[in-house]
Amino acid sequence: MSNSPTVPVQFSQRWHWGSRQAISFLMQQGADNPEVLSLAAGLVDPATLPCDEVQQIVSDMCRNPAEARSALQYNSSQGSPRLRNALVQHLEHLEGRPANEIGLSADQIFLTTGSQQLLSLICEILFNPGDIAFVAAPTYFVFLGTLAGVGAKAIPIRSDEHGMVLEDLDREIEKLAADGQLHRVKLIYLVSDFENPSGISLSAERRQQVVQLAKKWSHEKRILILEDAAYRELRYSGTPLPSIWSFDTKHEHVVLAQTFSKSFSPGLRVGYGVVPRELIDPLSDRKGNEDFGSAHFNQQIIARAMESGIYTQHVDRVRHAYKIKRDVMLAAADRYFRDIPGVTWVHPDGGLYVWMTLPQHIPTSFDSPLFQYATREENVMFVPGELCYAGAAEKRPKNQMRLSYGVLEASMPDEAMLRLARSVRRCA
Amino acid sequence: MSNSPTVPVQFSQRWHWGSRQAISFLMQQGADNPEVLSLAAGLVDPATLPCDEVQQIVSDMCRNPAEARSALQYNSSQGSPRLRNALVQHLEHLEGRPANEIGLSADQIFLTTGSQQLLSLICEILFNPGDIAFVAAPTYFVFLGTLAGVGAKAIPIRSDEHGMVLEDLDREIEKLAADGQLHRVKLIYLVSDFENPSGISLSAERRQQVVQLAKKWSHEKRILILEDAAYRELRYSGTPLPSIWSFDTKHEHVVLAQTFSKSFSPGLRVGYGVVPRELIDPLSDRKGNEDFGSAHFNQQIIARAMESGIYTQHVDRVRHAYKIKRDVMLAAADRYFRDIPGVTWVHPDGGLYVWMTLPQHIPTSFDSPLFQYATREENVMFVPGELCYAGAAEKRPKNQMRLSYGVLEASMPDEAMLRLARSVRRCA
Repeated sequence: MSNSPTVPVQFSQRWHWGSRQAISFLMQQGADNPEVLSLAAGLVDPATLPCDEVQQIVSDMCRNPAEARSALQYNSSQGSPRLRNALVQHLEHLEGRPANEIGLSADQIFLTTGSQQLLSLICEILFNPGDIAFVAAPTYFVFLGTLAGVGAKAIPIRSDEHGMVLEDLDREIEKLAADGQLHRVKLIYLVSDFENPSGISLSAERRQQVVQLAKKWSHEKRILILEDAAYRELRYSGTPLPSIWSFDTKHEHVVLAQTFSKSFSPGLRVGYGVVPRELIDPLSDRKGNEDFGSAHFNQQIIARAMESGIYTQHVDRVRHAYKIKRDVMLAAADRYFRDIPGVTWVHPDGGLYVWMTLPQHIPTSFDSPLFQYATREENVMFVPGELCYAGAAEKRPKNQMRLSYGVLEASMPDEAMLRLARSVRRCA
Repeated sequence: MSNSPTVPVQFSQRWHWGSRQAISFLMQQGADNPEVLSLAAGLVDPATLPCDEVQQIVSDMCRNPAEARSALQYNSSQGSPRLRNALVQHLEHLEGRPANEIGLSADQIFLTTGSQQLLSLICEILFNPGDIAFVAAPTYFVFLGTLAGVGAKAIPIRSDEHGMVLEDLDREIEKLAADGQLHRVKLIYLVSDFENPSGISLSAERRQQVVQLAKKWSHEKRILILEDAAYRELRYSGTPLPSIWSFDTKHEHVVLAQTFSKSFSPGLRVGYGVVPRELIDPLSDRKGNEDFGSAHFNQQIIARAMESGIYTQHVDRVRHAYKIKRDVMLAAADRYFRDIPGVTWVHPDGGLYVWMTLPQHIPTSFDSPLFQYATREENVMFVPGELCYAGAAEKRPKNQMRLSYGVLEASMPDEAMLRLARSVRRCA
């Protein structure tokens, strides 16, 4: 018998898999250095947040007591039918084709707490420990944690200026099939527009090809594609592309994940997926166990925003604000980094990130001289690029940075880039 | 190579564990029978929902742009510091003792999407497949699904009019220890106030004893108690009890889960836990992977409701409304069931449920004559009691019903009970 106060809690294997220090460390750095100009934070620009709009919507909603009561009551795990109907129209607009032509209806839509919860739920219902997901190199680093949390194996696939190189993906799957491991391949994860972190969009040709590739390798078990289109509506230049989902005409392979966190408000936590019909019940079961459904109140706010046209107007303003900041960032990159030999960066057509590559001999990791100098002496912070790679640590490029212009005020990206360039010169 | 449209999706083992038909079946019954008077639904009374209050709060919030922007931005996985501070005061009030005396501070509080998400996260971070949780017989049936979803084994412990019988619990743990299985025991789950479904509250004496028991059996690994106090603030008679948590003076064993879903609005999906400090980081890691934190906007609404006194006033009104319905239910039970031999029911001091036991020969399951007759001929629905038991199906009592007066308008419980009594007489 023991009353010892030191008896440890025994946490689950899954928690151990999913626990990661990277984000915690980044957030701690931010908290410890409040003066820092953050090129690291994935937050959205506070100036773009729809305060007046939300107040107006809630006010209108509450003028109708039946509607307000419904919004404040439980709803289903799948989420508000009203918002799902509004999303059908929204997706018609984004795809540039009518719902009946693209085979879309509200029953294929599943609402979540931000799109992150959709990514997490998809992993929960698909992956047994040891199952395989393919991700781009580089890819969205938070999703690597989500995959780790279910014990999945993430295999990185090389990217070029058109996104994931599908010949490499095909070859990897072929190798696994030859090894008798094809049944373990569950998912291909792609951030299709202005990828986090690289800023690159998957070309239209590859969007079509990757669906063909998933079909081709779906022998006894179906291979799904998780298309993370979180930044889709934040395009500032170039031509909008149809989603990968739109090329999957029978809607059997592609899960399209989108969110209102970037285009409207992350504090409302409304995201959604368009999913193959067989996934709706498993997702509902799982979400029922996790939280009974996301906040109905917030879903109804977004529904009203979409129906009233408030949303469309707002996204236009958001796009305009970010476009200015992107241009400031790219101009600053050119101004301050042009003369540093071996530095290159991607010019994104949208999204929130500039992906910069330094010469090989300048590592960017948390313990690198650059990261230390930048955060401590120059008060500027970035996300080390190596966090964005799956696979063996020794094979990851160590000389890259994700630079976000999301949260900084319009004049600040220039100053942040100046400080960062000074830091890089110092470590060169 | 195959392009077959019938290649199946292979779902995870965890999804299979967690998929249950009971709730889906109940919800489907409700959808298929819109005329039904539901004694089954766990929804709250729409008439109690705080429409005007929420409008006023949002309006006040938006008068301060900095505050509104913060509410519409991301926050941490642990949740709004402002709400966590307000909850310290709230819990002081509920426990009837100052925070420093009960050892409570805001850093022990973790905010979730309803308290269901806290229950789910606790299971995620604790349980490996095959680990053990003890639950009362009967217990909250949704939590049985949550345990199943992580592959946990739920062992039922007999209850009497004072709640779980702790001698039985002690004996069960002793048996497991003798079997070398003590390391698998992770959790004791208790709905401390007006238990869903039984309406019974755990006595003060047992609240203290169960903490001692968890300490006593925490040899190499700590045994936690998950105190689900979802109904705590819905007391209509009798004396409030200190939480089980308050008897765990070092705050090492008890997780106290509470929610605003019953007392304010389920559509806002704000719940919380007071947890041992070692659990905060694992919960944050896990929640970071699942959704990055619940809606900050909703947390700030609740914080304002608490700070302004709106919440306290509202809960008084909610309590008053439910007390009337509880009294109508109990009077109707007495009126219509008194003369049916062998029928007994619990008189709850709070919560939303009356737990009724029929004679042994009248089963209440979905496929029973009673359930069929009641839903089809009398348009009244209830939750079959057997859903609320863990353990072997053949050992579960089959002759009980959970009857909720939550969602029905004030005059309706009487009519619903009349119809139910007719159904029971018909099947007797």
